[in-house]
Parts: sequence; C-alpha cells; structure tokens
Amino acid sequence: ECTPSETTIDYSRETIVRHFVEVFREAVGYQGGFKILARDHQQKHVGLGSTGSVLLALAQAMNAALDSPLNSEEIRLLIGNNYVEETEDGRVTLGFETGVGPAAATYGGMAITGDELALVYHHPFADGKNVFIIIPPTTVSSSGRQEFDLLMNRARDLDYRDRELKAYLVLMDLIPALEKSDLVRLGDVVWEIEFRGSKRAEVEHHSFEIYHYMSRLREQGLEFVGMSSVGPSIAVVTGRGRKEIEAIVEPLGLKIAIATMVDNHGVRVGQVNGDQMNGDQGSLDLTKSGDLEL
Amino acid sequence: ECTPSETTIDYSRETIVRHFVEVFREAVGYQGGFKILARDHQQKHVGLGSTGSVLLALAQAMNAALDSPLNSEEIRLLIGNNYVEETEDGRVTLGFETGVGPAAATYGGMAITGDELALVYHHPFADGKNVFIIIPPTTVSSSGRQEFDLLMNRARDLDYRDRELKAYLVLMDLIPALEKSDLVRLGDVVWEIEFRGSKRAEVEHHSFEIYHYMSRLREQGLEFVGMSSVGPSIAVVTGRGRKEIEAIVEPLGLKIAIATMVDNHGVRVGQVNGDQMNGDQGSLDLTKSGDLEL
Repeated sequence: ECTPSETTIDYSRETIVRHFVEVFREAVGYQGGFKILARDHQQKHVGLGSTGSVLLALAQAMNAALDSPLNSEEIRLLIGNNYVEETEDGRVTLGFETGVGPAAATYGGMAITGDELALVYHHPFADGKNVFIIIPPTTVSSSGRQEFDLLMNRARDLDYRDRELKAYLVLMDLIPALEKSDLVRLGDVVWEIEFRGSKRAEVEHHSFEIYHYMSRLREQGLEFVGMSSVGPSIAVVTGRGRKEIEAIVEPLGLKIAIATMVDNHGVRVGQVNGDQMNGDQGSLDLTKSGDLEL
Repeated sequence: ECTPSETTIDYSRETIVRHFVEVFREAVGYQGGFKILARDHQQKHVGLGSTGSVLLALAQAMNAALDSPLNSEEIRLLIGNNYVEETEDGRVTLGFETGVGPAAATYGGMAITGDELALVYHHPFADGKNVFIIIPPTTVSSSGRQEFDLLMNRARDLDYRDRELKAYLVLMDLIPALEKSDLVRLGDVVWEIEFRGSKRAEVEHHSFEIYHYMSRLREQGLEFVGMSSVGPSIAVVTGRGRKEIEAIVEPLGLKIAIATMVDNHGVRVGQVNGDQMNGDQGSLDLTKSGDLEL
C-alpha cells in the first residue's frame, strides 16, 4: 500500500527490507512511502533463500502499486545488484550474492545464471513431483561472519578448482536433462555437483554428516537430493509421497520440515483486501532447489 | 509448392535435400510431394553452414505449405536429428552434427546449444554492425573423408582437453557479454575459444596460416574475428565500414567474399508468386558467426 511519505514495515528482518525500499524508491524516482506486511516460512538462515524471495515479492508488490515502472528482469537485476545482509550490530553490509534465487523465483522452475547476473537459462522441472525440505540439526550458524569467511575463502578456492567442470556439467548434462524433463538424470548431475566447488565447502561447513544423510536418501532411490544454498536444509524432489519419505528419514533421526511442490510459474502479484498488495511467496521453498551458483 | 506425389528439386545438392524431404514427409505424415527451388551463396564447403541453413529454410517452407503441423523448435530438432552429408559416390551418410547453425538461423542472433541439441541460450548481437566474410585460399578440402577424420579424431581429442574451459567461458564470459551487447568483450572470448578444442583442430586442418591471418586482423583492432565452422572462411564482425576493412585485408592478399549484417530476427517465411513458398535465406552468412560447438 502506498503512503504519502512514511514507510512502515511489519516483518522480522526490517533492516534489510528498509534498505531495499530505499533502493527501489531511488530506482523509480518515487517520493512516497509504503505500508509493508511480509511473512515467510519462519525458518531463518537454513539456506532456503527467504531474504531474496521476500525482497522479490516485495519489489513486485511495490512495483505493481506504482503501476509497474519496472519489468521483471529489471526487478531481478535491482535485487541482485543491491543485495545486503544484516550485520551482528543491526546494520547492513553487501551480501555475498543472490543471483539465481530471485531468477528462479521470478520465472519459476530451475534457473541458471552466469556472471554479472546474466540469466542463461530457465526451464520448468519436476512437474507433478513432490518437494520435501529436511532441516538436519546443526551446531554451526550459516549467517554472519562465519558464513562470510566460509563463502569467500574455502568456497572460492574450491570453485577455482572445479568451476570449469561445473560449467560443463550444466551445459552438457543438466540443461539437456531439464529439456527432457528427466528428473533422475537431473538428480544425478546435481549429486555430482554436490561434491564440487563451493557446494562442497558449504557442506563441509556443517560437517560432512550432511553428505552421510544425503547419501542415505540417495541409496533409497530418491531421484533428486541436494543441500540448499549454504545449508543445512536438504531438498528432496521425488515422485514418491510423504509417507514413503517419512519412513526413510525417520530412522535417520530426521523429519520433513516443509512439504511443497516446484513452482514452475514464478512470482504472481495479487490484490489483497482491495488495496493491499501482496506478492505470492509460494515459490520460496523451491528457488533453492534451482540454486546452482557457479 | 505442394504436388500430388512427385517431388522435384531445383538445387545443386539434390541428394541431401531429397533425403530431408523424405524425413519431413514421414514426420508429418504427408503423402504428397513438393516442388522445390533453393538457392544459396554458391560458396560450397567453406564452412558457412549453407546445408543446415538451406534445410531449415526448406523445412520452414514445406511446413508453411502444409499449414504448419510443426513448430520452429520441432523443425530445428528434426534437422539436427536427421542431418546427413553427401558421400563421394553420391549417397548420403550421417553428418557430424548441425545443432547450433539451425538454432541460430531459427531464432537469429547468436545461439548456444548443449548436448542433445538442447537450446541453452540465444540472444541478438552486433546490432547495426557489419559482418565481412573472408575466404582465404586453402588447398585442403573441408568436406568428405578428410573432414570426417579431422573432426572425429583430432577435434574430439582436443575438445576432451578443453571442453570444460570452453563451457566456463561460454557461461561466465560469452553470455554476459551478449547480455550487455559488448562486441569487444564478445570478440575477446571468441578469440580465446579459437585456440581451444575442436576449433584449433579445424584451424590446423587448413594450416596455422589461418591463425596468422586472423591475428593480423585482430592487431588492426577488429572487434570480432573467428573462423567459421570447419573453415577456411573467416568472419569479421565490426563497427567499421567496407573501405576500412578492404584496406586491412588487401595487403594480406585477401579479399571480402561476402558483406552482410547479423540477422537478429531469424528465419522468415514469405509467399512468392502467389503459391510458391520460399524460406528467407538472409540468415545464411551469420549462423556461423554464432557457431561455437562445444
């Protein structure tokens, strides 16, 4: 909802939202304010990409409230180029990167981005299949100073070694599998990528116990198993139902945190209560299934 | 033009065309024939991709004559999956591959394909710039048995060494350069790829004299210089005009064979003489500017 000047924010991560509202106002030259209400899945810093997805929903909503001065591609780039995280003392600092999350949330399905936020490819996947998010216990925080050090050092080093192979796997195996809607092959490629570059560093950060869990799920024949972003959340994409998956994960001491499906449509803007705009956040859980940052 | 049953072909490479007409008839379940007239740039086996482009134009024309049973993507895959070359004794044999040529000719601009003909990406490029095709003298044939041996052995071997780096260059440098319409950067990436994998084998086939020529053109500051397909044709994409380019190439003993521009639109089907269908072949020269087979 637009206001003459004041911006009110009803959401847990107000600092980040307030920063982005200023970015957005400057980008479109809007002098007024907004009345903002945002809700997410309440699972903070477990690698499900809520920040990027909430910002995308917010940007789409603010944009619609102003009669759409920006298109979806411009919104995606505005978020990616102005991405911040909270610091321990409540300020904001430049974030690592959020390229592929908002791309997947914008267009639905799985998205591949190259350098400089270039959208290389996006395609629906796993239509009609189930997505189960499992959040293993971890004693390690994925946010803040440690996350920064992890990503910037170990991940960069490992990506340096594997980045060419990862690019090859994406072009020659992952994209053809998406074109053919072959979830099994897609899962095989993603499983290989789990051990490559920054993804290995992200797993290592939580201890290789995560590999142990994921491997047990793979051994049960689950088609697609991958750690989401910096983890520890594990995403399972499968044709099997909830009961079958519960029977597999419970003996491991794990449980299903979120059950959903892949959003192959992308962000939708709807009207709530006549004048309150609200971006659909149905894509939250899945953007990170498509998260394969090179 | 449709005929009740007989197919007549007025074109120099009748064997290949006749084979594809049969493929097309079977694909759409058409019992009748076609009256076909096709013309190309008359530069045979110099790596300008005329076979793939003529087949694409032909397929689009036959499809339109039958009220479009196939869409553009189906036509592209039909060509790619049924590509043949002529043998020395007038039969046809399975061709090496033609994935990216028909993709570029279908959609215009530059196209990137992955394995199994998957269309990864396409984007306009070099809008308003000039394309000059230079065909250096060569004593080596690019067609037939020698071409087959070259591509299948040396090129495969070199691609095995460089394919991952090439994939990385495409995802992280080439596509971002296309997104930003940065012809200079695009030319730098393509120049690096000239020395990698199968492209090096294709250059070597004509002797490294081709590198010498291309290097001289690069030294003069031409933005984009690359050998087209198996060569020996060199494609120059530049903002400079014909007179300037002539002044550069003539001292090298070369001359401009074709001057054109990039087709960023793709294949168009027009009506000729009321009922004779004729695919637009304006995209012929440039498909191969976009030829970066991995």
